[in-house]
Amino acid sequence: MTQPSYDVIAIGNAIVDVMAPCADELVAELGMVRGGMALVDAERATELYAAMGPAREISGGSAANTLAGLSALGARCAFVGQVATDELGEIFAHDIRAAGIDYATPPRAGDPPTGRCLIFVSPDGQRTMNTFLGASHFLPVAALDADAVADASVLYLEGYMWDPPGPRQVMRNAIAAARAAGRTVAFTTSEVFMIDLYGADFRALIDEGAIDILFCNHHELAALTGEEDFEAGLASLAPKLEILVATRSADGAVAIAGGERAEVLAEPIEQVVDTTGAGDLFAAGFLSGHVRGENLKRCLEMGAVAAAEVISHYGARPEADLKALMKKRFG
Amino acid sequence: MTQPSYDVIAIGNAIVDVMAPCADELVAELGMVRGGMALVDAERATELYAAMGPAREISGGSAANTLAGLSALGARCAFVGQVATDELGEIFAHDIRAAGIDYATPPRAGDPPTGRCLIFVSPDGQRTMNTFLGASHFLPVAALDADAVADASVLYLEGYMWDPPGPRQVMRNAIAAARAAGRTVAFTTSEVFMIDLYGADFRALIDEGAIDILFCNHHELAALTGEEDFEAGLASLAPKLEILVATRSADGAVAIAGGERAEVLAEPIEQVVDTTGAGDLFAAGFLSGHVRGENLKRCLEMGAVAAAEVISHYGARPEADLKALMKKRFG
Repeated sequence: MTQPSYDVIAIGNAIVDVMAPCADELVAELGMVRGGMALVDAERATELYAAMGPAREISGGSAANTLAGLSALGARCAFVGQVATDELGEIFAHDIRAAGIDYATPPRAGDPPTGRCLIFVSPDGQRTMNTFLGASHFLPVAALDADAVADASVLYLEGYMWDPPGPRQVMRNAIAAARAAGRTVAFTTSEVFMIDLYGADFRALIDEGAIDILFCNHHELAALTGEEDFEAGLASLAPKLEILVATRSADGAVAIAGGERAEVLAEPIEQVVDTTGAGDLFAAGFLSGHVRGENLKRCLEMGAVAAAEVISHYGARPEADLKALMKKRFG
Repeated sequence: MTQPSYDVIAIGNAIVDVMAPCADELVAELGMVRGGMALVDAERATELYAAMGPAREISGGSAANTLAGLSALGARCAFVGQVATDELGEIFAHDIRAAGIDYATPPRAGDPPTGRCLIFVSPDGQRTMNTFLGASHFLPVAALDADAVADASVLYLEGYMWDPPGPRQVMRNAIAAARAAGRTVAFTTSEVFMIDLYGADFRALIDEGAIDILFCNHHELAALTGEEDFEAGLASLAPKLEILVATRSADGAVAIAGGERAEVLAEPIEQVVDTTGAGDLFAAGFLSGHVRGENLKRCLEMGAVAAAEVISHYGARPEADLKALMKKRFG
């Protein structure tokens, strides 16, 4: 097996985040579930945008955020995801390339426009997301370069992308390409409602050994396993995976790899400004350690440091020098 | 004279800022003048954007930023400026309306796209701006509602807009409308190079009494008067204006109104993050005091508080509750 050119190749939604602070009352008034992520159509997106205060636009997308963290930590990365030929598409493409990530998916002409996520940020930093997937939905099977997948140590897949049939097939093909090349497949379940919709698919992927590393939070673990108890959930899922990583918000995270178990507490930070991207950056820190061969505990710690950075400011991509933060923390 | 519906109506460039941190070395390499503002064409904008790191997009435009500050402080505001029918145009229009500002200029179809300003922010917070004016250049004379100008206590004009002939005519017409209605005309010289280009026009406006309140910084004061000495510059210009407000970056500001003179020091802040919008928000704080009938010293102090808030974070529009800040500072 030749040395791969990439540490991680990811397939995900290509999204620009539109973020504004808001009172919890507005979240309720607009019929949103605080802390959740809802898929919205163009009409609902327009309605919510009209109710939103002055905003800022920052590139996002779950797997793309994870790659931004990985790249900042020195990993060689490539991204596959669909934007439209519009200004938000140019912004997304610029930002991901400027983060040092290879990105070759051509933009798609015509409607719908580039996907966006309207994010209402509560005073305590909790984020409530409303995603209009736009062009992301239309990632064609032809966009996948199977050679590029075979040329990456890890294939990272975003559960959010499982909804539309086109991107779902892209991910199935990518898994096959990674498997054929003997690469590692990592998957994030993304959000409880994706498990409500596609839990059967996710469980089948796990049961047939298509996933090596699974990232989920405690809510998603419960939804996936049907076990309300965290430990019971871990016990039922871990034996089917090479590595299971389960986060618990402020209570830290657990990883289980074969017989080994490691835990980490959340990194203390001064103020939670915006929790958007916490899970994405946790995965970035963890995978960054993993591709460098760090032990399980250190991988978790790196995840916690990266997550702490991203929730200390607006936006789901790292702003501080993550390498310097890791050096300061671990020497 | 009836009570006007607006405190301030402003005419300015409708711009979305594209901001990224950068090293001073990159500013030099790209041939930019640190701390300056350059007008760039589409080709140069593309070149600079390609060299820029991951960025965030936040609505800007000098006079629009000033209105955002004024509106946050409770002033009733209207804005006139041209965007295109594109995503950045939608972002600009959303953000200015979400800030509580009336904005009725219809977007313009076709090329060029909405204006943008590529802002490189140095580690010490100094900003270097490259403005592609885009649709802003094409503000038509018909966009001006003379009745709205007559219906505002203050007409606020942005010197940056003097370059293209169309918007220049809009501003001349607006001055005439304000004068006819007995309203106050405020003008910011914006940038030394605008004075290099159009100083003769600016001096003529001042000499013919078309401007009541002039905002400038110490560099612009020198360029406008030909006096290198700050005090000599003030002495030569102040007698021609109702109020002259001259800022001096970290050294505070001076205002002269008839025989009265007031000074203020810059507000101390913890860390300068991004100086973009400092002058715009100084004008906002000052005018907010002015329309409420505060004394000259207090107007300056309000300018200093608003400027301090905007340079303590990324972006040229206020993020903190300016009203609360003023209340905390002045009771």
